[in-house]
Amino acid sequence: MDENSFSFNHGVDIENDGGSYLERKESSYLERRESNTSMYSDREGVVREPLLKSRINTTSQIAIVGANVCPIESLDYEIIENELFKQDWRSRKKVQIFQYVFLKWALALLIGLSTALVGFFNNLAVENIAGFKLLLTSNLMLADKYYQAFAAFAGLNMILAICAGVLCALIAPAAAGSGIPEVKAYLNGVDAHSILAPSTLLVKIFGSVFGVAAGFVVGKEGPMVHTGACIANLLGQGGSRKYHLTWKWLRFFKNDRDRRDLITCGAAAGVAVAFRAPVGGVLFALEEAASWWRSALLWRTFFTTAVVAMVLRSLIQFCKSGKCGLFGQGGLIMFNVNSANPSYNTADLLAIMLIGVLGGILGSLYNYLVDKVLRTYSIINERGPAFKILLVIVVSLLTSCCAYGLPWFAACTPCPTDLDVQCPTIGRSGNYKNFQCAEGHYNGLASLFLNTNDDAIRNLFSSTNKNEFHISALFIFFAAVYFLGVITYGIAIPSGLFIPVILAGASYGRLLGRLLGSFASLDVGLFGLLGAASFLGGTMRMTVSLCVILLELTNDLLMLPLMMLVLLISKTVADSFNKGVYDQIVKMKGLPYMEAHAEPYMRQLVASDVCSGPLISFSGVEKVGNILHALRMTRHNGFPVIDEPPFADAPELCGLVLRSHLLVLLNAKKFTKNRVLTRTEYLRMFHAFDFGKAGSGKGLKVEDLDINEEEMEMYVDLHPITNTSPYTVVETMSLAKAAVLFRELGLRHVCVVPKTPGRPPIVGILTRHDFMPEHVLGLYPDIHPHK
Amino acid sequence: MDENSFSFNHGVDIENDGGSYLERKESSYLERRESNTSMYSDREGVVREPLLKSRINTTSQIAIVGANVCPIESLDYEIIENELFKQDWRSRKKVQIFQYVFLKWALALLIGLSTALVGFFNNLAVENIAGFKLLLTSNLMLADKYYQAFAAFAGLNMILAICAGVLCALIAPAAAGSGIPEVKAYLNGVDAHSILAPSTLLVKIFGSVFGVAAGFVVGKEGPMVHTGACIANLLGQGGSRKYHLTWKWLRFFKNDRDRRDLITCGAAAGVAVAFRAPVGGVLFALEEAASWWRSALLWRTFFTTAVVAMVLRSLIQFCKSGKCGLFGQGGLIMFNVNSANPSYNTADLLAIMLIGVLGGILGSLYNYLVDKVLRTYSIINERGPAFKILLVIVVSLLTSCCAYGLPWFAACTPCPTDLDVQCPTIGRSGNYKNFQCAEGHYNGLASLFLNTNDDAIRNLFSSTNKNEFHISALFIFFAAVYFLGVITYGIAIPSGLFIPVILAGASYGRLLGRLLGSFASLDVGLFGLLGAASFLGGTMRMTVSLCVILLELTNDLLMLPLMMLVLLISKTVADSFNKGVYDQIVKMKGLPYMEAHAEPYMRQLVASDVCSGPLISFSGVEKVGNILHALRMTRHNGFPVIDEPPFADAPELCGLVLRSHLLVLLNAKKFTKNRVLTRTEYLRMFHAFDFGKAGSGKGLKVEDLDINEEEMEMYVDLHPITNTSPYTVVETMSLAKAAVLFRELGLRHVCVVPKTPGRPPIVGILTRHDFMPEHVLGLYPDIHPHK
Repeated sequence: MDENSFSFNHGVDIENDGGSYLERKESSYLERRESNTSMYSDREGVVREPLLKSRINTTSQIAIVGANVCPIESLDYEIIENELFKQDWRSRKKVQIFQYVFLKWALALLIGLSTALVGFFNNLAVENIAGFKLLLTSNLMLADKYYQAFAAFAGLNMILAICAGVLCALIAPAAAGSGIPEVKAYLNGVDAHSILAPSTLLVKIFGSVFGVAAGFVVGKEGPMVHTGACIANLLGQGGSRKYHLTWKWLRFFKNDRDRRDLITCGAAAGVAVAFRAPVGGVLFALEEAASWWRSALLWRTFFTTAVVAMVLRSLIQFCKSGKCGLFGQGGLIMFNVNSANPSYNTADLLAIMLIGVLGGILGSLYNYLVDKVLRTYSIINERGPAFKILLVIVVSLLTSCCAYGLPWFAACTPCPTDLDVQCPTIGRSGNYKNFQCAEGHYNGLASLFLNTNDDAIRNLFSSTNKNEFHISALFIFFAAVYFLGVITYGIAIPSGLFIPVILAGASYGRLLGRLLGSFASLDVGLFGLLGAASFLGGTMRMTVSLCVILLELTNDLLMLPLMMLVLLISKTVADSFNKGVYDQIVKMKGLPYMEAHAEPYMRQLVASDVCSGPLISFSGVEKVGNILHALRMTRHNGFPVIDEPPFADAPELCGLVLRSHLLVLLNAKKFTKNRVLTRTEYLRMFHAFDFGKAGSGKGLKVEDLDINEEEMEMYVDLHPITNTSPYTVVETMSLAKAAVLFRELGLRHVCVVPKTPGRPPIVGILTRHDFMPEHVLGLYPDIHPHK
Repeated sequence: MDENSFSFNHGVDIENDGGSYLERKESSYLERRESNTSMYSDREGVVREPLLKSRINTTSQIAIVGANVCPIESLDYEIIENELFKQDWRSRKKVQIFQYVFLKWALALLIGLSTALVGFFNNLAVENIAGFKLLLTSNLMLADKYYQAFAAFAGLNMILAICAGVLCALIAPAAAGSGIPEVKAYLNGVDAHSILAPSTLLVKIFGSVFGVAAGFVVGKEGPMVHTGACIANLLGQGGSRKYHLTWKWLRFFKNDRDRRDLITCGAAAGVAVAFRAPVGGVLFALEEAASWWRSALLWRTFFTTAVVAMVLRSLIQFCKSGKCGLFGQGGLIMFNVNSANPSYNTADLLAIMLIGVLGGILGSLYNYLVDKVLRTYSIINERGPAFKILLVIVVSLLTSCCAYGLPWFAACTPCPTDLDVQCPTIGRSGNYKNFQCAEGHYNGLASLFLNTNDDAIRNLFSSTNKNEFHISALFIFFAAVYFLGVITYGIAIPSGLFIPVILAGASYGRLLGRLLGSFASLDVGLFGLLGAASFLGGTMRMTVSLCVILLELTNDLLMLPLMMLVLLISKTVADSFNKGVYDQIVKMKGLPYMEAHAEPYMRQLVASDVCSGPLISFSGVEKVGNILHALRMTRHNGFPVIDEPPFADAPELCGLVLRSHLLVLLNAKKFTKNRVLTRTEYLRMFHAFDFGKAGSGKGLKVEDLDINEEEMEMYVDLHPITNTSPYTVVETMSLAKAAVLFRELGLRHVCVVPKTPGRPPIVGILTRHDFMPEHVLGLYPDIHPHK
């Protein structure tokens, strides 16, 4: 049929339940594919301000996400397969399934491969830049040029810091910070602006290299997770559309579910690279990052991290031959403590419980301080890029002063005689730094401060020399690292939280081990490991994934029961004070994260209590002008469609139509003069993928439409693009139950229908914002939130 | 108000949306607590026969579950907290929350503790019984009394086998087999008859000890998982009600969600004990056992397995002093291969891929054969317990003949001179069995056959002596174990699948390693490990959990990339042939397991296509006789309640009422002469926990009711026990989408409502059976299942 001939087949398509399979099939890809998608509406204007905290935190790595730039993703779980199986059912099915399955695995492979390469490059660059810097400093010190040494050290640090800061502040502010909270929010369905953009990726990679090499107390682990997610996003989109790099096959991945799967794989690959822990990566993605999980995804994530493990292994093998400059210390296991003897007695268990309790308290205090510092920094950061860079410079100077200045307070220790390694290490990077000491002596504090973070951790975990670090040195290092870690997260550089926490935790654990020396018989290196575990448990609040990551980091399986005990205690203690650091940052950034459970007070409310009006709905065949007006006046992402006489006997809910689909439909300008149904013609005009989800910020906007006055008066049939079976709840359903439905199915809209017949067919629409505690408690301030 | 005074307050409670909070609160615990519960109805009679295969498999460990004895659990996720927070809201809240939280953790602790103790007892008993048997045999052989030795060996085996068989066949048929499929089905919502009963627990524990000690090629791992689940169930119910052991506090756990959580913890503890792998236990419970997962559950499971790890460690420490008889070989790591050198080159990688491909093929063949053998055995087993025991005897004899007979074909090998251990081992259990050989020689095949399964695996993984086992010995052992493993699963003893698969896989891997000796440089012990991994991947089809379990079994982190590669390949290869062995058994037993994804053909149907009538519904105030008639005539577990004039202006769906609640209500006999509402009075008559879920088979039955003729004519108000907001779908919703809703929210009933107004308010009810492929494809045989 010609696409311009519209026939009047009125009355056929309204009630679908008696239709033939063929008819159903033709219309259903749209019906189901897009069920429940986005509504980001004006009507929550009342609550948006406190929720997103846009007044308090607007810049830097907190609140880079504003209310206006934060589209929320649909999490419907029945998307791609409909496209595959419904569209062009007969002819192209097999080819499409092959393309889809092939691409799915090819992309997982590519994500693993590229993340491993990027991560390895990151490692290599950091080790070489920082190694060069440290060598230069120690050579100058050897020549007794102490001031020049400080100048070189602090100067190089500052140059690197400025590079990182400039990249972050000017090119991609979204690259600042850890990135894990944003990835977590994305996987929960909140697509923050440009968080996975190519520019963010580039800045994240280089910013992280510069930031870590600049000697900041930051890690590369969080940024690696973010990098992995960005790589996955980029690969899934086939590169930037701007440069015509998209590939036709990738149209299958233009939906939320597949994007999210890819990004989960990317995040897992990031952890796998950062810690060289493939299984830990899978578990991290499962426990911390992802909000929904299927066994198929577990399987694909596992595949990705297996690729990472194999690529990493061969790269490390290659570097062992010495072709990678100063790189080449660690093998596949970063901090091998396997040699230590893990026997322990009751006194040790008591000591370990003490570690857990104190670690939990210090960990939650860390979260509290990070929160306070972030809020303070956001006031500075929102004044502009110059202030951001200034803050970076100040923190860099402070870090350099600590690292170079504090070792002067430490006493020199004579080298132990029974060492396998050179002591003091002169003229190369390594342990037992000579610093200002006489020959045959070393400065323990300098060994910790004037080293890369990885080497410092390795030293703290080492069990060869129990007295390697003096108690005072450990205390000074612990206090300095704890303080620097708190003040560094929040400046405009990519900054992971794992390494600062591990550093502080390991020094705290080793310190406690030394203090309890006579009481407990465990090795101080193992105390360091358990201290790190307790701090991680106290800040991040993960369990199984931390356990496996630490296991893969240290290769010490016999410590597993102790590690589990410490994690249990520290998490329990810390949970009684505040939330995990990532949850805290997600909340602070104002990202509307849906928790897995409904809040207790939601049981006191019903669904209709929170949906606020006015509800804007369309008729089955609607005037173009009305649609355009609604699109311009509101930012709703979904509109109910109501069939009225003559298309139905009584007003009935036809379904839900999405803003993005309306825009595509209006853009095609297939309007009719009269109020008629035009269903089948439409299907031939459009290709299924015309309605596929565009990349962030790449979809049509209402401003792009060019509709003239005459067209405004014409009609358009919305039935073909209406999702005719949205998920509904009855108005008297408890809000908690509606929240469970919303969250478990990953919806964007739930239609609230009336309980009694004879009323308008829809009462309201519930969106993500309606479930946010700020909104609900704003409407009902008398409710006690914790009951 | 007196419970006998009924006032006529008609018209108040029908429409709830304008009610006050207080009113809502009072009525809502029931409304929400029981949303969507069970319907196991007659109307699926058409499909039940083929679905449950009751004709083919009715006895032994397949199809112990008949259609009549298989209630299906509600998986609603909003249960206990309503009881807690709604009932007696003001007065007892804090105490109840404390009780609930305290009990939750105390139960997790108890589950961990008891499972660890039971598992350790199991281990100890097996090692001592089997050790004694093997010692006796070898002592007789040393005296050249070969026939007596065989008689003792086969006789002891048979006695032990008969003990196990009698226990299983006569006391608890549900204890036969692995138990993992049943636990998996339970966690999916299918409560098979007496699968978690105390008798099953006892038989499982002792049957497993006897079965493993009897030398069968079976493991104790699957039974341990089942044991853990039974222990959890028993503890959660506070012991048997029969012996007045229930505890009042435990009423909080009388709901599906908490039961299921406890049983997940139990299953995890089982794996943790069986493999001494706490993290592997958590992951097994997550990947294989559980159908729904929350982070809170992860955390509790982790706690349970941490308890297991610590208890196990101290028990093993205790046994190291030699107080446990013949026990005491393995430490916390069962098969330590950490010493082997894990360097490998490209040729090794090729060899490993070959292992993976062949392992996948052999693994899926194993599944296929197990399936065939189970179907054959079920014909024998259903003839009665005597035939079951006969089958056990036959298999036991066959096993004894293989184990004692086959080593005669192996040549004697001279003992290597550079060993740390005694060779040949004489007069004690151990490696290097002398068997028929002359002094200074050992029989490799006897070392594998005449050992416990654990020791055989340890031998196969060992890397100290590359040529310990001759190629022919490995081949014979592999073939025998593969064959015996296939024919043993299905007889009436508790029989795990892990150990047979690991045994066959390890011998296959080591054999391949020997064959590829000149080509690949990897150690043969590592080849054995990789072979075991490939077989496990090929039969069980798990990924991350197998990886971690194998890691914890062998403590060889550097093999991780290779292990991941092998698992990936073997799972991919095997998946192209058939399903995993547990899924296969679940299906064969006819348990209506809901898959996580909807089948492709479901997209071609809509919800109303599969709900079959007639629909039995009640009026808001219904005649007692009608209810009783419906309860007697059908086995529906849920009935829609429809409000009609004068209680509503037009017929409207009031909600869903459950059979179990109707029985409690009728049992209380609070009826009225006239058709009136009696809402508030009811709430004072009943205690919330009166409606709590009873233990399996312990609830009221319709036969227990004693209603006289006069009462039959009276009325009862169903509103107080009606769930007024069941989840609904519109009749035109795609079946696939309805299935996603059903599965993700863990429902038992979904009400199908009409699309157009003016029709009866409910079209039908969808239950688990309506989504079963057998039902759908039975109704629509023309649909192509794979499209």
